[in-house]
Amino acid sequence: MQQHPFTFSVSVPEETLSVFDKHIVRRLSAMQGQYLDTQAFKTMLSQDPVLYEVYEINRPELAGELMNGITIVHPGKIGEEYFMTKGHFHNLLATAEVYYCLKGDGMMVMETPEGEWAVEELHPASVLYVPPRWAHRSVNTNPHDDLLMFFVYPANAGHDYGTIEQHGFHQLVLERNGHPQIVENPRWRQQER
Amino acid sequence: MQQHPFTFSVSVPEETLSVFDKHIVRRLSAMQGQYLDTQAFKTMLSQDPVLYEVYEINRPELAGELMNGITIVHPGKIGEEYFMTKGHFHNLLATAEVYYCLKGDGMMVMETPEGEWAVEELHPASVLYVPPRWAHRSVNTNPHDDLLMFFVYPANAGHDYGTIEQHGFHQLVLERNGHPQIVENPRWRQQER
Repeated sequence: MQQHPFTFSVSVPEETLSVFDKHIVRRLSAMQGQYLDTQAFKTMLSQDPVLYEVYEINRPELAGELMNGITIVHPGKIGEEYFMTKGHFHNLLATAEVYYCLKGDGMMVMETPEGEWAVEELHPASVLYVPPRWAHRSVNTNPHDDLLMFFVYPANAGHDYGTIEQHGFHQLVLERNGHPQIVENPRWRQQER
Repeated sequence: MQQHPFTFSVSVPEETLSVFDKHIVRRLSAMQGQYLDTQAFKTMLSQDPVLYEVYEINRPELAGELMNGITIVHPGKIGEEYFMTKGHFHNLLATAEVYYCLKGDGMMVMETPEGEWAVEELHPASVLYVPPRWAHRSVNTNPHDDLLMFFVYPANAGHDYGTIEQHGFHQLVLERNGHPQIVENPRWRQQER
C-alpha cells in the first residue's frame, strides 16, 4: 500500500483507469430477486449480461483514508427496468459518498434505514452528494451509452449488500413510453427496527 | 445543512459550481513570505492579483462527511515562481484528499511533517491521491490557462495554514527556460519534532 502520493488517469472514452487494484464485473446472475419482471429476468439469465463494472483504488480501511475509482453501468433493460448496480448501505452507516458524473445519464436511487427515499438525476459534470446513512444504487437511463461516474468515499465505510438484497429499494426506475419513470416497488419491505 | 441527498453541477468552461456555500478569493497579499523573489513580490503587491479561488460545499465537520468543491489557480508568476495556493496540512493529520483535474496543467507540491517531499503533475482527467499526513499546495504551470480541480476530503480534516507559513515547502516550482522546474527552497525550515 502506497503511503506516498500518487496519480493515475481516468480515460473517459475507454472507461478505465491507468492504474487500479480491483476490477469488479457484475452480471445479471448476481442480481437475483432485484428485478421486478421475474420472467424477463429468467429469460435474460441465459445470456447473463454484464450490468456494470467498477475499477477501484485500494486504500487501508481506516478513517481518514478515501476509496476512489469509477463505476460504469452499461445500457440495457430487464423488462421495463434499466440496468443498475446492486446498491448498498455502508456498513459504517455514518459515512457519505461523492459521485462526479463523467459520461452518460442516469439516476441514483437512495433511501435511509427508516424508509425515507430520494432519486437524483445524473448527467455529465453533475456532482451527487450521498449523505451518511443513505443506501444508493446507480441506474443507467440512457439506452445508447454507458453511465460513467468517479466516486470517493471514506475507506472505513464497508459495504452492506444484504439489506438491499432482502428488502429492495423503495423506488424502481422503469422505462415507460420511452422515458424513465420512478415507480414504487411493490415488493419493498420496511426494515425491522 | 441538508441531510437529504443533493446534486449540483460543475461548469468547467465557466469554472464555477451551480450551487456552493463558500467562495474564497485569495490574493497575493495573503501569501506574505511564501514567494522566493521578495522584490518581485513587493512590486506585484501594488496590483495584488487574485492567485486562486475555491468554491466549496459545506458539510458538518464530522467524520464520515465529505467536503467537496473546486479550486481554480490562475496563470501567472511572481518572478520565476508560478501562481499557487497557500498550501496546508490538515489539522487532523491522518486525513487524505482526492483531486480530479478538470482543466489545465499543474503540479501538486507535498510534504510530510518529517520533511519527506513529493511533487506530482496534474493534467485533465488525472486523479491525485494525497495520503494522510501530506501537506499539499497546487501550482499552475500552464501560462495560458487556469488550473481547475475537483476535490474531496473528510469533513473533519480542518486546515493548518500556519505551519507552511512558518516553514515553507521543501520544494518550489519555478519557470526556467520556459519549463517548470522543481528546485529546493533555500528558506525551508524543518519542523521541530
